[in-house]
Amino acid sequence: MKTAGIIGAGKADKELLELAEEVGRLLAKEGITVITGGLGGVMEAASRGAFLEGGITVGILPTLKKEDANPYVKIPIPTGMGEMRNALIVRASDLLIAIGGEYGTLSEIALALKTGKKVIGLKTWNIPGIIECHSAEEAVRLATSLIKGK
Amino acid sequence: MKTAGIIGAGKADKELLELAEEVGRLLAKEGITVITGGLGGVMEAASRGAFLEGGITVGILPTLKKEDANPYVKIPIPTGMGEMRNALIVRASDLLIAIGGEYGTLSEIALALKTGKKVIGLKTWNIPGIIECHSAEEAVRLATSLIKGK
Amino acid sequence: MKTAGIIGAGKADKELLELAEEVGRLLAKEGITVITGGLGGVMEAASRGAFLEGGITVGILPTLKKEDANPYVKIPIPTGMGEMRNALIVRASDLLIAIGGEYGTLSEIALALKTGKKVIGLKTWNIPGIIECHSAEEAVRLATSLIKGK
Amino acid sequence: MKTAGIIGAGKADKELLELAEEVGRLLAKEGITVITGGLGGVMEAASRGAFLEGGITVGILPTLKKEDANPYVKIPIPTGMGEMRNALIVRASDLLIAIGGEYGTLSEIALALKTGKKVIGLKTWNIPGIIECHSAEEAVRLATSLIKGK
Repeated sequence: MKTAGIIGAGKADKELLELAEEVGRLLAKEGITVITGGLGGVMEAASRGAFLEGGITVGILPTLKKEDANPYVKIPIPTGMGEMRNALIVRASDLLIAIGGEYGTLSEIALALKTGKKVIGLKTWNIPGIIECHSAEEAVRLATSLIKGK
Repeated sequence: MKTAGIIGAGKADKELLELAEEVGRLLAKEGITVITGGLGGVMEAASRGAFLEGGITVGILPTLKKEDANPYVKIPIPTGMGEMRNALIVRASDLLIAIGGEYGTLSEIALALKTGKKVIGLKTWNIPGIIECHSAEEAVRLATSLIKGK
Repeated sequence: MKTAGIIGAGKADKELLELAEEVGRLLAKEGITVITGGLGGVMEAASRGAFLEGGITVGILPTLKKEDANPYVKIPIPTGMGEMRNALIVRASDLLIAIGGEYGTLSEIALALKTGKKVIGLKTWNIPGIIECHSAEEAVRLATSLIKGK
Repeated sequence: MKTAGIIGAGKADKELLELAEEVGRLLAKEGITVITGGLGGVMEAASRGAFLEGGITVGILPTLKKEDANPYVKIPIPTGMGEMRNALIVRASDLLIAIGGEYGTLSEIALALKTGKKVIGLKTWNIPGIIECHSAEEAVRLATSLIKGK
């Protein structure tokens, strides 16, 4: 199983949500499993895109309840670890795609870079080490070649 | 998604492995996702039974590498948490079915009972609170009614 | 720093509490740090014994709030991990002394034995691998020789 | 117990190490426990400053071995959780002081800000939300008033 983690805020504007949904959809088309934090906003949009394309969507939740997952998560993993679960998202993902995002997303970006995982950025934090892309297509094309090229 | 965690030792004899495979197969027939620790022995046999029946199999691994999962795990979740990941198996499962097993299995049984989850036992530890069954069929019939009846 | 984890239920009868307090006191006299889960019952009694003897007491809490620690914990470590923090108690302890206890204690005993740590038992679960003792003095004498002999 | 987490890279230049040692020393003078990741660089310098001043130093280690702690850690907490232990450092600290630092430090800064903890920065990442200070004295004066004022 090849996996990409899509990270971003639980609340986001329309532009970011459309971007996340398109990224999710294109990853699913490539047969890449979409890992998210399982909640709303960018996490839900990305899951929705992948789900509607028939892909596999995993949601690694901060809470103890599977029911907290958004409806497009096929495989909810309730952890009860709060924000600490961000590290599990990073560990479960072959690479990360950050879309927008606030401090939670930043912590995931930093953990990923710290542990040697590639991070592709779309309208996100400007941190050295992130590979910036400008469209869903560009991001997924790059992600696919990085993941499958391994 | 309804889930059952199947727990048991990484090394087990033929009888336990056949039991685990049959439990996995019957759970998959009921549409219940099989959660395991993702490694060998009972974990692999249960995953194999469910996988060959077309079910979903999740493996919550102690290591950082998806490749450590047995070949019948469709969704590997590498945690890097060692034995601490046993708590995640319990949290991700609606109930637990313990088959044989040693100290690792005992820790999962205890955590499950501590947090109010039902544990069905097949040739496993004799601990008050475990619901003992005597065949794969009996265990899965009971598990199904407990899970779906919620 | 040499450490012993004292594990047992959050609610316990007078006999177990006195035993736990005496074990804590004797460990502190030996200069051994007492690790507990930081809450009430056996955890509090053990911390109290060590604290009043001038020893170091660490409480590895399930919650996010240091204030949840009993008053005899000098070093509270809030984890926010719930019962999953049991694994941290085991990891932080050179060996474990189990006093009474219910399912939570059983999960710690099992994790300790699984990872090769000695477990000394006082009126606790009857699990193969536990070294049974019959008094606080006997338990601490044995613990001290096992810890310092390493 | 009042606590401050001092975060920064495992390798740092002389200027940062002197800064970290002075911050540790001044916190200990205020009776504030110093929490670090327990390893070298900024973590060691901060622990050393506090230790030599007679303060309490806690090291929350990524590994399973207490022996991995630097010699100025009085209370080593081995977690075996790798970088995931960064979240435990944040949770155990009333506030964070970031000194220099790379991606690991950034993940801690982000987690702290995400969960509403103050972060004081000394020559560290330039992230909105960090309160920038320019000397050890200024940082500890501010930290003390924020921690004790709660």
